[in-house]
Amino acid sequence: MTIIPSSQLWLYDTTLRDGTQREGLSVSIEDKLRIARRLDQLGIPFIEGGWPGANPKDVQFFWQLQEDPLKQAEIVAFCSTRRPNTTAAEEPMLQPILAAGTRWVTIFGKSWDLHVTTGLKTSLEENLAMISDTVAYLRSQGRRIIYDAEHWFDGYKHNPDYALQTLEAAVAAGAEWVVLCDTNGGALPHEVTQIVESVKSHLSNLICQIPMTNDQGQRTIPQIGIHTHNDSDLAVANALAAVMAGATMVQGTINGYGERCGNANLCSLIPNLQLKLGYGCIGEHQLLQLTEASRFVSEVVNLAPDEHAPFVGRSAFAHKGGIHVSAVERNPLTYEHIQPEQVGNRRRIVISEQSGLSNVLAKARAFGIELDKEKPEAREILQRMKDLESEGYQFEAAEASFVLLMHEALGDRQLFFEVKGFQVHCDLIEGKESTNALATIKVTVNGKNILEAAEGNGPVAALDAALRKALVNFYPQIATFELTDYKVRILNGHTGTAAKTRVLVESRSGLQRWTTVGVSTNILEASYQAVVEGLEYGLLLHSQTAAALKI
Amino acid sequence: MTIIPSSQLWLYDTTLRDGTQREGLSVSIEDKLRIARRLDQLGIPFIEGGWPGANPKDVQFFWQLQEDPLKQAEIVAFCSTRRPNTTAAEEPMLQPILAAGTRWVTIFGKSWDLHVTTGLKTSLEENLAMISDTVAYLRSQGRRIIYDAEHWFDGYKHNPDYALQTLEAAVAAGAEWVVLCDTNGGALPHEVTQIVESVKSHLSNLICQIPMTNDQGQRTIPQIGIHTHNDSDLAVANALAAVMAGATMVQGTINGYGERCGNANLCSLIPNLQLKLGYGCIGEHQLLQLTEASRFVSEVVNLAPDEHAPFVGRSAFAHKGGIHVSAVERNPLTYEHIQPEQVGNRRRIVISEQSGLSNVLAKARAFGIELDKEKPEAREILQRMKDLESEGYQFEAAEASFVLLMHEALGDRQLFFEVKGFQVHCDLIEGKESTNALATIKVTVNGKNILEAAEGNGPVAALDAALRKALVNFYPQIATFELTDYKVRILNGHTGTAAKTRVLVESRSGLQRWTTVGVSTNILEASYQAVVEGLEYGLLLHSQTAAALKI
Repeated sequence: MTIIPSSQLWLYDTTLRDGTQREGLSVSIEDKLRIARRLDQLGIPFIEGGWPGANPKDVQFFWQLQEDPLKQAEIVAFCSTRRPNTTAAEEPMLQPILAAGTRWVTIFGKSWDLHVTTGLKTSLEENLAMISDTVAYLRSQGRRIIYDAEHWFDGYKHNPDYALQTLEAAVAAGAEWVVLCDTNGGALPHEVTQIVESVKSHLSNLICQIPMTNDQGQRTIPQIGIHTHNDSDLAVANALAAVMAGATMVQGTINGYGERCGNANLCSLIPNLQLKLGYGCIGEHQLLQLTEASRFVSEVVNLAPDEHAPFVGRSAFAHKGGIHVSAVERNPLTYEHIQPEQVGNRRRIVISEQSGLSNVLAKARAFGIELDKEKPEAREILQRMKDLESEGYQFEAAEASFVLLMHEALGDRQLFFEVKGFQVHCDLIEGKESTNALATIKVTVNGKNILEAAEGNGPVAALDAALRKALVNFYPQIATFELTDYKVRILNGHTGTAAKTRVLVESRSGLQRWTTVGVSTNILEASYQAVVEGLEYGLLLHSQTAAALKI
Repeated sequence: MTIIPSSQLWLYDTTLRDGTQREGLSVSIEDKLRIARRLDQLGIPFIEGGWPGANPKDVQFFWQLQEDPLKQAEIVAFCSTRRPNTTAAEEPMLQPILAAGTRWVTIFGKSWDLHVTTGLKTSLEENLAMISDTVAYLRSQGRRIIYDAEHWFDGYKHNPDYALQTLEAAVAAGAEWVVLCDTNGGALPHEVTQIVESVKSHLSNLICQIPMTNDQGQRTIPQIGIHTHNDSDLAVANALAAVMAGATMVQGTINGYGERCGNANLCSLIPNLQLKLGYGCIGEHQLLQLTEASRFVSEVVNLAPDEHAPFVGRSAFAHKGGIHVSAVERNPLTYEHIQPEQVGNRRRIVISEQSGLSNVLAKARAFGIELDKEKPEAREILQRMKDLESEGYQFEAAEASFVLLMHEALGDRQLFFEVKGFQVHCDLIEGKESTNALATIKVTVNGKNILEAAEGNGPVAALDAALRKALVNFYPQIATFELTDYKVRILNGHTGTAAKTRVLVESRSGLQRWTTVGVSTNILEASYQAVVEGLEYGLLLHSQTAAALKI
C-alpha cells in the first residue's frame, strides 16, 4: 500500500508499543505477531511494532515480519532522536531501526525546553540538531518519517516559540507527519483545539518554503497527527478535537491500553470518527469486526475485557427493567446512540432484580425458547430467578445457567446425568513441591450408577476431571469442552472465610462459549455447581446442533 | 444548607440512583446510607437518593434519613412526571415523593417528541401539561424542583422547537434548574457546546417573562444542568463542554458507575473542573479525600476498583523503571499532569522487573525495619520479592506478608509455630442441605507436635478453625484475631481451573488490620498460606506491643 498524506484520516495503532506499557500487561513475540495480523485485517493502515534495539523481543518481531509481511498495513519502527553530541550516522541506536526494514519510521523528540535542559541535559540548539540530523539521516536511507513531538502540549504552553522550532526542524529535514503528543495526559479539549489550529496555520506558512516530493515524485505536505493519553479521562475527546481542528493522523491503542490510565481508545475513536463524524477510517465490513477485534486483543494479552467499554463492551447495549425494554424492542434508535451491529456488538436484555416479565420473555426469545406470557411458567421463572438472586446468584453474566433454569421451569430440562454426590480430599505435607487433590464423584447416567475418581492440581481441577471421566463414555463430545475461565467472588466481603462464594465458570466448545454460576458458603460446592451446569449446557448445545443438522 | 442557584457550579451525585443501574451492582439500604454519608463528607451539595415508591428499599432509605439527616448535603428524591390524562394531585406516584420529606425533588420528563408519541403514547400537548402540572404541584407542596430533560440532545436535534417548549413548561411552573440529559450517551462535545449555548440564550429571554422568587423571597433565575453518559467515551468531555458553555450544575456518579458504559465520572470531573478550570466544587481538604472516597464506594458496592482510573486509580501516577523514575523524582511536574496528593492519591514507583533497591528500602522504612542498603540482605530481599512476584505474589496489598519476608531475609523471623502439613476433606451428598468440610492439621509449637481437626462451613473455614484449635493454648491472644476479608483472584484467566490462584486474607485484632497473601494452583493451598501468615503476623504484632509496654 502506498500512503500519501492527504486530507484523509489515517489511523495509527500503538498497542504493541505504548499499549504494552500498561501495568500488568506483557506479551510474547508470538502474541505481538498475532495482534499485528489482526490489526492488519481490521484495516489499520499504520501499526507501530516496537522499538527495535530496546529489547531483543522487538528485534525478532520485525525480522519475522520481514519474512512474512503484513497484507496491507505499514509496520512502523519506533525510536528516539540520536543522543547529544554525536551524528545520526554514527549513532548505534539507529542501526537496528534500519535493520528492521520498515518503510516508515517514527522518531520521537523533545518539544519542551525544560525536558531538553534538565532531562537530556543538553542545549536547546543541540536538541534541534538531534531532531533534524536523525530525520535527515533516516530519509537518506530511504525511510519515510513520522515525527512524534513528545510532551508537545505542555512544551507549547511553556515556550511556544521553541516548541514550534522543534517541529520546523523535523519538517525541514523531511518528516511527513508531525504528531502532537499529550504525553502526560493533562490537556483539555479546548486547549487541544486552539493549539492544533495554531500549529496548522504555522505549518501552512512553512510549506511554501520547503516543498517536498515523496518516493513517487508527488509533492507532499507535512501533516499533523495526534497522540493522547487518558489521565484526565479525555483521551478520546482530545483526539476528536484535534481531528476537527485539522489533524489527519490519530494514534491510539486497542482497548485504550497504555501506561498509567491508558492511551486514546481506538475502539471508541473509530466509531465516533466514522459513524458520527463521517471520516473514512476503515472499511465498513472491517468496522463490523471491531468488537471481535477488541476481545481478541484482550484475550491475547490475557486481560479481562472491560464489560462497560463504550461500543465494544458486553454491557454497551444492555438494557434493564420493564417498560424500557419493550420500548427498545419497538424502536431501538430512540434508546441506542448507534446500532450495536454496526460495530459487531449486540443488544442484550439484562436479567436483574428490577426485571419484569418482559425481560424474561425477551431473554427466552434470545435463546430460542418459546414462552407464553399468559402461562404460569413465565411467572414461575421470574420468581425462581428473583429467589436465587437474593441468595447471591447472578444471571447477568451466567446466561447458560439461566437457560437451564428456564428449561427446568418448563419441565423440559434434559437429564443428561445426575450427580449424586462428591468427595474431595486435599493433602499438603510441608516441604513437598505441590499439593495433590483427589476427587471422587458419584453420577447416574441413563439409570446407571458410576463412581469415578481423579486427581488434579487443585480441588476444582480434580472435580472437573472426575466428572469428565464419569461422563465421557456416554457423551464423547465432552472431550471438546474446555474450561476457559474460572472466577471467584466473595459475596459479603466482611465475614471472612465463612462468607458466601459465587463462582462463574466459562466453558468453550469450538467457537461457542457459555458461562454458568454456582453459589455456596463452601467454595468447592459453588465450583462444583458451576462446573456441572457448564457440562450440562454444553451437552444441551451439542444435542440442539445435532437435532438441527438432522432437519 | 441553603442553596441559591447562582453562577457558581453545583455538583449533583446520582450514584445511588443512576449509578445502581450498572450491570452487576446491587446495594442494600445500609450500603446506600453509608455512601450518602460519605458523599456528604466529601462536600457534594446534591445527592440523589433514589425513586421513593419505585421499590420498598428507596422508601426506607428516605425515612431513615429523615430520622438521622445528612450534615450538609441536600438529599434529593427522583421521580417522573405524572402519567397522561390525570392530575398531579391525584397521581399516587407523587405521594411517596412528598412522604420522602426532601426539600428538593428532581422530576424527569420527555424532551423528544418521538418518545412522547411512541413511548408514552400521548399527545405533545399532554406531555407539556404533565411537566407543568407535576412541577407546579410539587412547588405548591413546598418543594424546590430540578427538572431533568430526558433524551434532551437527541430530542433537540430532531425537533428543537418542541424540546424547548418542554423546558419552558418546566421553568414556567417553577423549576429552578433544567438539566440537559444525554440519556443515550451519543452526543459529541462540539454539539453539546452549541446546544447548551442555544438553550442558555433561549432561557435568558424567558426569564424576563417569568421572574420567580425562592423560599427566602430572593429572586432566582432558572439555571442549566448537564447529565451525560459514557457510551461514546465522552461523558466527562461533554460535561466539561456544557459547563464551559454556561451550565451551573453537573450530574455524575462516583467511579462513573451507571447503566451500560456508565455516567460521567465525578472522580474525573471534580479535579478537572477544580484544578484545571478553576471552578469551586468542593473544599480543598475535601478534594484530598477524593481517592479514598472512590475506593470507599467501590468497596461498599463490592466492585473491584479500576486500577487505571484517571486521578484516583492505583496506576494513575505509576512510573516504571530506571531513568524515568529518577527524572520524576527530580521534577514531578514535568511528568505528572497534577500532583497526586491534590486528590489524595500518590505516586507509585512500580515494583516490576525494572525495580531497584530504592523501592525495597522505601518499603522497609515504611514498616520501621532498618535496612542498610550496603548489606547483602537488602539485595536478597529484592531478589526474593522479584522471584515471588514472578510467581504471582503481590505485596502492594499484602504488606504483612512482605514484612514477614523481610524478617526472614534478615534472619530474625520469629518462629511462633510451624505447620507440618494439612488435609482437607469435603463431602457432598445430593439433597443434603449443605456440605461439611473437615480439616486436619499438624503443627509444631515449642518443639511439641500437635494434631488437630475441625469442621467448617467450607474447606477454608475448617482449616482456619483447626489451626486456631492447635494454637490457642499456646497463644490465647489468637482468640481476638478475626478474619475480616477473603479475596480470590485467578491469575492467568484462560486456563480455567488449572490456573494459579492468588488469595488475599485480611485479619483484624482490635483496631489493627493486616493483609497476607498466598499463591498456588490449588486454591486451598493458597488460602492456607495466607491464613497461616495472617496468624503469624498477628502474633508478631502482639509480641511487639507487649515488648513496647514493658519498656
